[in-house]
Amino acid sequence: MPLDRKTLIPALKNIATRLRIDSVKSTSEAGSGHPTSCCSAAELMAAVFFAEMRFDPKDPHNPESDRFILSKGHAAPILYSAWAEAGAFDRRELLKLRRFDSDLEGHPTPRLPFVDVATGSLGQGICAAIGSALNARRIKSPYRTYVLLGDGESAEGSVWEAADVGAMDKLDNLCGLTDVNALGQSRATMWQHDMEQFARRWRAFGWHAIVVDGHDLNQILDALLEARDTTGQPTMILARTIKGKGVSFTEGKDGWHGKPFKKGEELDRALAELEQQFVPVPGGKEVNLANEIPKPQSAPRPVAAPKPIAPPSYKLGDEIATREAYGSAIAKLGEADSRVVALDADVKNSTFSDKFERALPDRFYENFIAEQVMVGAAMGLAARGAIPFPSTFACFLTRAADFIRMAAISNVNVKLAGSHAGVSIGEDGPSQMALEDLAMCRAQPNYAVLYPCDAVSTEKLVAAAAYHAGPAYIRTSRPKTPVIYGNDETFVVGGLKVVRESRNDAVTVVGAGVTLFEALKAYDQLKATGTAIRVIDLYSLQPIDRDGLVAAARATGGHIITVEDHYAAGGIGDAVAEAVADAGVTVHRLAVRAIPRSGKPDELLDHFGISAAHIVEAAQKVLSVSKA
Amino acid sequence: MPLDRKTLIPALKNIATRLRIDSVKSTSEAGSGHPTSCCSAAELMAAVFFAEMRFDPKDPHNPESDRFILSKGHAAPILYSAWAEAGAFDRRELLKLRRFDSDLEGHPTPRLPFVDVATGSLGQGICAAIGSALNARRIKSPYRTYVLLGDGESAEGSVWEAADVGAMDKLDNLCGLTDVNALGQSRATMWQHDMEQFARRWRAFGWHAIVVDGHDLNQILDALLEARDTTGQPTMILARTIKGKGVSFTEGKDGWHGKPFKKGEELDRALAELEQQFVPVPGGKEVNLANEIPKPQSAPRPVAAPKPIAPPSYKLGDEIATREAYGSAIAKLGEADSRVVALDADVKNSTFSDKFERALPDRFYENFIAEQVMVGAAMGLAARGAIPFPSTFACFLTRAADFIRMAAISNVNVKLAGSHAGVSIGEDGPSQMALEDLAMCRAQPNYAVLYPCDAVSTEKLVAAAAYHAGPAYIRTSRPKTPVIYGNDETFVVGGLKVVRESRNDAVTVVGAGVTLFEALKAYDQLKATGTAIRVIDLYSLQPIDRDGLVAAARATGGHIITVEDHYAAGGIGDAVAEAVADAGVTVHRLAVRAIPRSGKPDELLDHFGISAAHIVEAAQKVLSVSKA
Repeated sequence: MPLDRKTLIPALKNIATRLRIDSVKSTSEAGSGHPTSCCSAAELMAAVFFAEMRFDPKDPHNPESDRFILSKGHAAPILYSAWAEAGAFDRRELLKLRRFDSDLEGHPTPRLPFVDVATGSLGQGICAAIGSALNARRIKSPYRTYVLLGDGESAEGSVWEAADVGAMDKLDNLCGLTDVNALGQSRATMWQHDMEQFARRWRAFGWHAIVVDGHDLNQILDALLEARDTTGQPTMILARTIKGKGVSFTEGKDGWHGKPFKKGEELDRALAELEQQFVPVPGGKEVNLANEIPKPQSAPRPVAAPKPIAPPSYKLGDEIATREAYGSAIAKLGEADSRVVALDADVKNSTFSDKFERALPDRFYENFIAEQVMVGAAMGLAARGAIPFPSTFACFLTRAADFIRMAAISNVNVKLAGSHAGVSIGEDGPSQMALEDLAMCRAQPNYAVLYPCDAVSTEKLVAAAAYHAGPAYIRTSRPKTPVIYGNDETFVVGGLKVVRESRNDAVTVVGAGVTLFEALKAYDQLKATGTAIRVIDLYSLQPIDRDGLVAAARATGGHIITVEDHYAAGGIGDAVAEAVADAGVTVHRLAVRAIPRSGKPDELLDHFGISAAHIVEAAQKVLSVSKA
Repeated sequence: MPLDRKTLIPALKNIATRLRIDSVKSTSEAGSGHPTSCCSAAELMAAVFFAEMRFDPKDPHNPESDRFILSKGHAAPILYSAWAEAGAFDRRELLKLRRFDSDLEGHPTPRLPFVDVATGSLGQGICAAIGSALNARRIKSPYRTYVLLGDGESAEGSVWEAADVGAMDKLDNLCGLTDVNALGQSRATMWQHDMEQFARRWRAFGWHAIVVDGHDLNQILDALLEARDTTGQPTMILARTIKGKGVSFTEGKDGWHGKPFKKGEELDRALAELEQQFVPVPGGKEVNLANEIPKPQSAPRPVAAPKPIAPPSYKLGDEIATREAYGSAIAKLGEADSRVVALDADVKNSTFSDKFERALPDRFYENFIAEQVMVGAAMGLAARGAIPFPSTFACFLTRAADFIRMAAISNVNVKLAGSHAGVSIGEDGPSQMALEDLAMCRAQPNYAVLYPCDAVSTEKLVAAAAYHAGPAYIRTSRPKTPVIYGNDETFVVGGLKVVRESRNDAVTVVGAGVTLFEALKAYDQLKATGTAIRVIDLYSLQPIDRDGLVAAARATGGHIITVEDHYAAGGIGDAVAEAVADAGVTVHRLAVRAIPRSGKPDELLDHFGISAAHIVEAAQKVLSVSKA
């Protein structure tokens, strides 16, 4: 039976005070952090954790638990304090905040079992919350998702991408709270305490918006109930708060952002003030609200084991674009594994994710032209057990580069798919050509970076990516390419294929995707002149098969030519060069070295130096040097 | 004297028909492109170009001209047609659309003199338009800026970042038009023809919003007049249009996005229908509106020549963070050159751009926490002659990665400044650590990538970046570092400094920023054991001083050790390895190879393998191998 407000409110008020004290103490101990950004949110945190959510503090990963995402990640100390208060761990741990030997980092990361996704880059948590709410639908669970934003954060465009998608998908299992404390890092926020500025935006975007005094627990509890009763749309609770609330000399004062209290007089004074704020409780004995937290409504349901996937059924020589094979592959994978979901950004007919949508409409999420929320929602879905494949043109994945970075820090199972890579797209011109996507994903040390060249390798690598632990990127191409692999070939993350070899190979040419076919053309041309070359399909850039590359190089005079439909920095050339760095191998790179332009694909491959003719020329140069 | 509507409207209607015909013909000739996305916008384009804007078609770069930015860049053919109609070039050129030998690319780029910034990645043109409008204020010009968006594009978060900034800055010299044709690439848009969805959003964000029938020229002209009369806020004209308007079998039909008409019967039918749409004009002779385009209101004003900049006045050994020296440097530069402006995203007290704001408040633009519009506005400012320095934490520049990509394609003078790079920031944790920013910027072939280590080199490189033609990136650090260079040292884009050398150096160590000081510590430690090393400050990663690196490597046994506060891919190690690739040099890389965590800076530098101790170890390993 729920507690009556007379009992509940003073208990929550005292929790809020303890959360403030923890936040102040832990940041002073750390010597850095954001205590005043925590203090504004203390009543909101107390109410959500101890009078609203259903969860088991000892089993935070429970798939049926309500979720809480701290989008304003710099308020991490109060998040940690709330979990300690709930009994997840010993409160004394809080004093290890920001230490190298503690997982209580400066901003939350999933090293902590109760953190779904890393936050601290603003405007991302609410996108992940969209994914968490979509996931509840996927697993048919009544769990709800709560997300706490800052007011300064609301200037991020990604927040409004999430707002659109949340309303469009009618996510009434999602409740946002915005801590409107009116002060940003460097100055007053854009709208300060003009609550109507916030309310009219959220209402315009289709959310149910409720304005409350964020330090009035009764108003907060009423709003949470109202959110729960709201159907057909998500709710945003807009809470007017005071930054630094509870410590008189910081309340509403600029210049305190990201500053801990100095140990000694300053800290002592703050704590003394806070200690005074404990309130008497009815009957004199405070009820331990941690013991009253309702458990999840349902028991965890068994996840259906993935069915075996039939091998591909392509014919050698068939001309199929890898992007089209990608669409077929995710549809097939999705049929076999209910965890697989697909997301797109209004290009499903180009990425061919529409094949997934036709097969499995309930697990396809259209985000319209909003790549940030697409990748952010994928992070939230992945954190809750799904295996999401968000797809768009590879160049537009750069729009979500900061989310791709945070997905690396979160180490979630997001499987990015970028189509239309490189100058080989042709006439659409440079704005549509991804030439830095490999660099972007390879920069993150825990991304698998895969680049299939034909339909068979695409289908196999999609499955390999799905079951690879952690984030992955699959790069596909626009032009049709012939099937060169048999349906029984195996492809593993970290592998490569030697597709042409002999005992007398003069040099190794490493290509991937469309340039593999340029390498094969070069092979034929050189063969006609009596020169044999080794050709490698480097379908896995990261991890990379260092031994395979070194072996090939050693067998071919210590020379490797790389050729890639990508800028020179950060792609295949750099990956190969680093892999063989200590083996005394010379790497010659063919890559796009200038801003490209519109033209026919073959014209561009040749003009920008990555066609068969350029490979032949490079090989002949190596030969002449080797002989000299 | 302006023409009366009786004369104007039929002439505009006929221009709209010609624009449609051009768009249809040129895309059919090219065999690709987006004719139906042009047809919906024909009346909007006709009205803005031939009854609203002041410009000189023969002098598109005129700094006093009204500006037009095509945010929906895929409608490029109609933009080209409008400029041809205005007399900027021969209409017959339009049939070269998308050809390699023409600058009429698939999406607009500044290869064309009348294009300010490249578009084609949606949601960016409106951000550049913010910068264009801000620039009018900077040069005190009455010119106005017009920007045409698509409805699908309005799902991009960057559009709403621009909306906030435009309203906050009261940009009443800015007029947006949204072509609401209700159909995206792959399906109907989120809000289709529900015009109220658009109007309520723009009004909520503080814009004056006007809903019109986008094919009714009278309504469009009235709205443009209303926009001109609106003060204190920007205007958005929301035009209800029909995709494929003018060609009966495509009007409002899904499935026609990005498809040209097939030459032959299909194209002939479309053209026959369009030809029927010419209307009679009063008096029988159509007035040539190209001759009626009003010239800019003011003559171009002379730009004040930059004053000489005094040399820095730091003292050797002073401890100053490069981010703080950056703030001082841009303020000093701004005093000397009125083209220099600064932008920030609510971290001006951390990036120290607040020093610029205090000195030159009129040329400082606060974007709050909205990095996309910050970089987009910088692109617009740069396109109009300013030299903008947008700054934030380097990790949050990844939020604008797609803008950074488009700034490369635009080749504009944007000078990005990213602070707080690497694990050396310490306790805040991985979400605040840029470890892929060098990879991101170096991937773009025309970015200068600069990384100063002390206050003197920062000040010199800020000036070097400002006067380097094209985009640049300056990376600064959080910790204080000692001044090691005299105030008269010179630093050039593409240079390096040998900071320790002797005749007997055993190996070359290449560092930059904070790792240069680790290299200097390693130098001291190794010297104490009788080993000399050469130490290079690689302050310019791109362009890179290949000869300097090769010379150092050759003088030190052919070995280079690189050490960087950055992930292993795409940064200093890769840059050096590529530069020396053909010189038989072995490059050993020290870089961050795992997702970092919170901790003390020194603890992290050591744990992640980039401290002096690791350099010493690597040098000793090289020595033992060299001797063996």
